[in-house]
Amino acid sequence: MKDIVKVLKGTGFSSISAQEIEMLENYLYCIDERGMIVKRLSPSNSHYYSTLQNAKDEHKLVELTEGQYLLPGFIDLHIHAPQWAQSGTALDIPLHQWLNTYTFPLESKFEDTLFAKKVYSHLVDTLLANGTTTGLYFATVHEESSYQLAKICAEKGQRGLVGKVIMDDPDQNPDYYRDNDTQTALEETERFINRVKALHEETIQGVYPVITPRFVPSCTDSALDGLGKLAEAYDVHVTSHCSESDWEHGYVKERFGKNDAQVLNEFGLLREKSVMAHCNFLSEADACTFKEKGSAIAHCPISNAYFANSVIPIKHFHDLGVEVGLGTDLSGGYDPSIYSAIRQTVISSRVLEDGVDTEKAPEDRGGRSNSRVTAKEAFYFATAGGGESLSLPIGRLAENYAFDAQIIDTTISQASMPIFDENEPLEDIFQKLLYLTKRENIISVWVQGEKIANKKESYTYNGEY
Amino acid sequence: MKDIVKVLKGTGFSSISAQEIEMLENYLYCIDERGMIVKRLSPSNSHYYSTLQNAKDEHKLVELTEGQYLLPGFIDLHIHAPQWAQSGTALDIPLHQWLNTYTFPLESKFEDTLFAKKVYSHLVDTLLANGTTTGLYFATVHEESSYQLAKICAEKGQRGLVGKVIMDDPDQNPDYYRDNDTQTALEETERFINRVKALHEETIQGVYPVITPRFVPSCTDSALDGLGKLAEAYDVHVTSHCSESDWEHGYVKERFGKNDAQVLNEFGLLREKSVMAHCNFLSEADACTFKEKGSAIAHCPISNAYFANSVIPIKHFHDLGVEVGLGTDLSGGYDPSIYSAIRQTVISSRVLEDGVDTEKAPEDRGGRSNSRVTAKEAFYFATAGGGESLSLPIGRLAENYAFDAQIIDTTISQASMPIFDENEPLEDIFQKLLYLTKRENIISVWVQGEKIANKKESYTYNGEY
Ligand SMILES: [Zn+2]
Ligand SMILES: [Zn+2]
Repeated sequence: MKDIVKVLKGTGFSSISAQEIEMLENYLYCIDERGMIVKRLSPSNSHYYSTLQNAKDEHKLVELTEGQYLLPGFIDLHIHAPQWAQSGTALDIPLHQWLNTYTFPLESKFEDTLFAKKVYSHLVDTLLANGTTTGLYFATVHEESSYQLAKICAEKGQRGLVGKVIMDDPDQNPDYYRDNDTQTALEETERFINRVKALHEETIQGVYPVITPRFVPSCTDSALDGLGKLAEAYDVHVTSHCSESDWEHGYVKERFGKNDAQVLNEFGLLREKSVMAHCNFLSEADACTFKEKGSAIAHCPISNAYFANSVIPIKHFHDLGVEVGLGTDLSGGYDPSIYSAIRQTVISSRVLEDGVDTEKAPEDRGGRSNSRVTAKEAFYFATAGGGESLSLPIGRLAENYAFDAQIIDTTISQASMPIFDENEPLEDIFQKLLYLTKRENIISVWVQGEKIANKKESYTYNGEY
Repeated sequence: MKDIVKVLKGTGFSSISAQEIEMLENYLYCIDERGMIVKRLSPSNSHYYSTLQNAKDEHKLVELTEGQYLLPGFIDLHIHAPQWAQSGTALDIPLHQWLNTYTFPLESKFEDTLFAKKVYSHLVDTLLANGTTTGLYFATVHEESSYQLAKICAEKGQRGLVGKVIMDDPDQNPDYYRDNDTQTALEETERFINRVKALHEETIQGVYPVITPRFVPSCTDSALDGLGKLAEAYDVHVTSHCSESDWEHGYVKERFGKNDAQVLNEFGLLREKSVMAHCNFLSEADACTFKEKGSAIAHCPISNAYFANSVIPIKHFHDLGVEVGLGTDLSGGYDPSIYSAIRQTVISSRVLEDGVDTEKAPEDRGGRSNSRVTAKEAFYFATAGGGESLSLPIGRLAENYAFDAQIIDTTISQASMPIFDENEPLEDIFQKLLYLTKRENIISVWVQGEKIANKKESYTYNGEY
């Protein structure tokens, strides 16, 4: 037990694959000082009882109580951190207009680092309270406040992947909100990478710099080219949007005569550590490029309903071998909870399968067969799939994975779940957790072996930044 | 002030119409001993300050604090109370199979009134905690446990409309779960009506009996005929399902050679106080019949994604003049919150408008134009529309309406909303309330002028039934 600093005992659920869940009844998780699960023991393991006893003796045991369950922490692959301030508003207009009327004016305010810290701090607290242990963030064009977001993640214990946004084309972006020029954009990006890499060294859970062209329409060719070279040189994560809406997909096609995915790829931006949001209009060839390059789709089902003019055939792309994770897309999506993204993934996939218009016969209703995503698959996307997308050892309650977890209490007063059968099968409990967990039920959140959010402690913004 | 027992002061939101919201900044609501709003005063009213002072002097004032807002209590028009026990599970199979494999076996257990009380009590607490002040419930075929549901609503202070379910056709229902015979079904229904009417007299908020044929496929012609006559004789509410799925719509068409709505109408079941769940496949003529009769649609967007093979053109039907409210459809829908129904109404309507399949050009994507429902309209359905559907004076913060309300706190620790601007327009606050309120934010719930649910008090099942 000398390398083990904590042992958790409880019943949990973890994905083996998109189709298969492990139901880990009363397992022990042995966590080392790096916050990694170095041993996972089932009650049938011959070392189980001795490990349990040692953990008790050495005061290292954390034990879940009746009605509490362990899930991997969720991974949110697409968050516009500044947009949190407008979450839930202005969802009635098309993407292009939404950006120019609401979003760019708001994002431009993040030049003020005090305002940025206030919003970012509140956001990170909110995501943690919702069980999100890893977040991939778009910040804004401003280097300093983007860095502050990485710092807030570092301080609060969340695994943050943060990008300073690049949008340098003067013809496509408003004067009040864009990079000054291409050269400065690239220099600031490089400096940002180095600053966040230095910050990373000071954290247990890790914070990561991300190369983040907003999307192809907002960048010049030379910026995209320079960013591809930085991605190669530093081997850091890359994120952007890809083929989101009819308008965006069409714009890129007109400018380059090819699909978004091919353009991103030619600039060296589709890489193993790349995550592209939406991707609704990927062609089969585009999907193959994603697969070859090891790039992932951040599926954002709530925001898609508002801005993507369609339902992405996400099961089809995943079946083709493309890595898939989920995103809230705050504030194109209004909801900070990945539980909501899981639920909407299932719902949207069923609407895709059946089609919509009741005036048409079932076979003419515009549906696409074999599109259904089960709750189990959506959970996989939210956890293990997200980890694979980021090429990090996260998203599973398994050996050699970081201990990132949320503890769900199904029995808490005023938010207890409808479990009336003492012998309810774990399979059904799992489904109820996915569909019925509310923020109140998430009683604690762990990242890299540390409990960082807890209902009994305050972890909201204290106004002292 | 002698007839006024309480005065509430606070900022609230209430629908004038589906398109227009009143933003009631710092209004006073004067409530009489019947729980009705007898006076509503804006700060510009000449009696405002004297009324406020009198209320203070007479210790009748309840004042919302900074960051708290008042909304009408929500009205849930479609809840299968027994199915709460399986909520969140078994959502991967078609309607017909779902009923026979999961739902009927579960519902048959409600012959045991002890089990029924346990589940119903937990459900009513849960709905109240989510801001639902009025619920229209399907219970089961069992008269006694259906009556117990009405009793639990009465005791907990919720306005419950409860139906003993009728499903008498031996060919269409399992032997272990159906009415013994048509005659008994009708007698039990009549006795149930009288018992609940007697119970109604003992409550402030009212509980109401509902004539509840499960749906046309499960009832004999003579049962439907007898129920129509009871509806006429007692002038009580009627509820059922109508044209939900391809299968159900097709079944009725085959048996009667006409649409569900016409069959229900000919049996006298489409009346002013009738509420029919789903109605996805109503024809234009069916919708006109609904309008003429004053019957309402209970729109259940979450369950529709699982079982209705389509998205109902709900805006179109509402524009035609049909009354519309929202339902959770527990457990065809998994979520007990009408907030979730509001959000999914908007989302599904946008998918209906755009269509789904990304391989098709926008104009061939199967969408249906002018289908979008705004958040404001969905809120109207959840409140004023629900009240009109039930022909009860509820769903508005207005004079001569019952004071049914929920108080939302946007500032509570760990669930505070992203409101960073002290002068944020009320219009934006309203949108944030609709999209971001979580159960934790609903700090108290009022029905008919009484505070019946409060975060600081326990109101969960105490195990003493
Ligand atoms: Zn985005
Ligand atoms: Zn139903």
